[in-house]
Amino acid sequence: MGADPVKYQLDESQIPTAWVNLLPDLPGEPLPPLNPQTGDPAGPPDLTPIFPMGLIEQEVSAEPEIPIPEEVRDIYRLWRPTPLIRARRLERELDTPAHIYFKYEGTSPAGSHKPNTAVAQAYFNREEGVRKLVTETGAGQWGSALALATRLFGMECEVFMVGVSYDQKPYRRAMIETWGGTVHRSPSDLTEAGRSQAEHASGSLGIAISEAVEVAAGSEDTNYSLGSVLNHVCLHQTVIGQECIEQMGLAGESPHVVIGCVGGGSNFAGIAYPFLRQRLREGTQTRFIAAEPAACPTLTRGRYAYDFGDTVGMTPLMPMYTLGHDFVPPPVHAGGLRYHGDAPSLSALVKEGLVEAKAIAQTAAFEAAVRFARCEGIIPGPEPAHAIRAVFDEAEAAKQAGEERVILFNLSGHGHFDMSAYTAYFAGELEDLEMPDEELAAALESLPEAPALA
Amino acid sequence: MGADPVKYQLDESQIPTAWVNLLPDLPGEPLPPLNPQTGDPAGPPDLTPIFPMGLIEQEVSAEPEIPIPEEVRDIYRLWRPTPLIRARRLERELDTPAHIYFKYEGTSPAGSHKPNTAVAQAYFNREEGVRKLVTETGAGQWGSALALATRLFGMECEVFMVGVSYDQKPYRRAMIETWGGTVHRSPSDLTEAGRSQAEHASGSLGIAISEAVEVAAGSEDTNYSLGSVLNHVCLHQTVIGQECIEQMGLAGESPHVVIGCVGGGSNFAGIAYPFLRQRLREGTQTRFIAAEPAACPTLTRGRYAYDFGDTVGMTPLMPMYTLGHDFVPPPVHAGGLRYHGDAPSLSALVKEGLVEAKAIAQTAAFEAAVRFARCEGIIPGPEPAHAIRAVFDEAEAAKQAGEERVILFNLSGHGHFDMSAYTAYFAGELEDLEMPDEELAAALESLPEAPALA
Repeated sequence: MGADPVKYQLDESQIPTAWVNLLPDLPGEPLPPLNPQTGDPAGPPDLTPIFPMGLIEQEVSAEPEIPIPEEVRDIYRLWRPTPLIRARRLERELDTPAHIYFKYEGTSPAGSHKPNTAVAQAYFNREEGVRKLVTETGAGQWGSALALATRLFGMECEVFMVGVSYDQKPYRRAMIETWGGTVHRSPSDLTEAGRSQAEHASGSLGIAISEAVEVAAGSEDTNYSLGSVLNHVCLHQTVIGQECIEQMGLAGESPHVVIGCVGGGSNFAGIAYPFLRQRLREGTQTRFIAAEPAACPTLTRGRYAYDFGDTVGMTPLMPMYTLGHDFVPPPVHAGGLRYHGDAPSLSALVKEGLVEAKAIAQTAAFEAAVRFARCEGIIPGPEPAHAIRAVFDEAEAAKQAGEERVILFNLSGHGHFDMSAYTAYFAGELEDLEMPDEELAAALESLPEAPALA
Repeated sequence: MGADPVKYQLDESQIPTAWVNLLPDLPGEPLPPLNPQTGDPAGPPDLTPIFPMGLIEQEVSAEPEIPIPEEVRDIYRLWRPTPLIRARRLERELDTPAHIYFKYEGTSPAGSHKPNTAVAQAYFNREEGVRKLVTETGAGQWGSALALATRLFGMECEVFMVGVSYDQKPYRRAMIETWGGTVHRSPSDLTEAGRSQAEHASGSLGIAISEAVEVAAGSEDTNYSLGSVLNHVCLHQTVIGQECIEQMGLAGESPHVVIGCVGGGSNFAGIAYPFLRQRLREGTQTRFIAAEPAACPTLTRGRYAYDFGDTVGMTPLMPMYTLGHDFVPPPVHAGGLRYHGDAPSLSALVKEGLVEAKAIAQTAAFEAAVRFARCEGIIPGPEPAHAIRAVFDEAEAAKQAGEERVILFNLSGHGHFDMSAYTAYFAGELEDLEMPDEELAAALESLPEAPALA
């Protein structure tokens, strides 16, 4: 207690003025996405039906910095800069010499990091005359972030919500509607894709994506919007890590290890890529840990290969770690981490050994999240609970080594809309679903024909 | 847009070092609470079975400043100082010359201002060897705040939750359990009071209070804790208004009008009392508006009289505006505003004409809350939605007058656990329940015999 601060705050004038694009700094030649029909590198014409040129350019940009438009920064000001917090109570609880810092993205109105890219995507679409954005959502974090962002730019938002979530999570739906968005239960009868899947009444993210893409592709003034995986999404999130660099400077420390959870990779990229650029350019020795669910072990047990981004095979082929686009993750509570692939940029970094991947069991994640909440107050979302588990392990390693290591992690969102998962945890009803080897091997058989990756 | 900030931030070293006790500045002699048996002024012996001396002294203190213990400030640092935000987007939406500022207390881990007093109460109890705090909760805001606070001091917490809320709001319950609190459905079979009310299976706040007080009174190391109404509770909340004074200074403005919603009065007192002291001492002309629900119109249609604080008549008689302790407010969604009485200090200020009271219909409150959320992002709790409605009216008045008035209000909490109320609003299912005169008159017949108040 006393004079040493708990929170490191920046002024809103210190919101970054550019996003960090790590593409030009990645080792080796970038692997292009491929057109699934021709097998040729996919170019802008493959994407213009559903994305605006402003975002397509960011997707392939060789510029290390992408300026953030003032209108986007103006909206970021509603909640950014977010706090960097030293978890002093947690350090005492863990009896570790490690210094544990977390960046808290749960202060955004939607409760996670997702609005960082939703606002940017809404802006670049509106600049090109797009009137409506369509997307899919599972648990609802992404759908609510996009509803908020489009509203602030006077646009419309249509969200296809996975049927089972639509039924079980009415509160995220209410949030989307409060911000003026329209929510459809998927599969719906509004699209060809939805009607063709009517017998799968509980829906899936794959079906919901297909419905959203179909609506976007079929309308002039309507585009599609994706909440993770793509390069433009990952780079929008780098406001997180850039603020952390400033804030760690205020604390007079720099991280030995940076930790984030990974579903598609965007919150991890957000905190890690600015520090990764320092490592690549300046030779800093920071370690990076990507924490993924053991039930959906893309980076730890998947294959590095070209695969579709969606389940039904409509998107370009992307070079990434994948479990196969047919893989249906078991229903773990970290809905935001249930994705068969990962961002190509993050996959390349794991392949190069610059990022370590670690699989975390669900109950271990919740055990850590509850302990965290009882020290620091904030109740974490199930997704960052996986990062917290990895933090505990690093804090223990520091204790074993007797070293005062600095650990930084991304608390990407709160768990206010996930309390049923905590209830299940306390009731002893959470299962740890390890995937059998045969099941993973079977899913990988769905990989499309494409050049093998080294 | 541009250089003018949206948020006014303080450093954690600027968390106030003392609470403002308005009692010595209130006009006239303070009216004492009365022992319900003897009719004599109630003293500490009436309160020691359930409260620690540290809080009893604050309840009647003549000191204008009560120092905040460093251990309490250290916990405040987890989320305080909270931001003061200029609602520039809302001003444009309302097309008003008014400058609208709001203090956002939803950044606390529990999502409202309640932890400000929960932490203080836990501290003063622990200082006197109390090991456990027991309380009641309706919608769950207060119960979760106390669970958080006790946990941070290594104490236990037991919450009697109104039966119907226990069944309908499992997520607040999960939050309490995440912080290590125990939740009982009230009426329970754990207490005499609960067993005697078993036939009222859906429970009420009155029954839950009786159960909690019974447990506290019957155990040496267990005390009771109340989340509003009492002077020590109101004064703990004045960290809000003191921070606002600093932050308005940063903005270079001072409020023409300060607005808060009122249930028992604590969040209103929190933002208003420091400014009220300025008015009483320095003659500033700030106006103060207490926004209460039309369905529970204590200040606007109640009587100024001695009444019990609870429904079953166990507490001392308090001088306050009341609808009669038998009054059962209709089930409006602003659960935190459903109280038959109001803080004696606030009641005295209304009686003196220093605070204006205004009754707000539920649908008008939600209409304002949705418009607010679509401009500023944050989804307000149903309680502060009442304050927002009053803000809209003041902003319109400023427009009519063509005056650049400065409006400050307390956004006391977010609505993440109240989304079902928004769903009901969008479905057109919210009712505006005006109380018929006969019903109010009937409830007032429950007033106990006591000296009449001027």
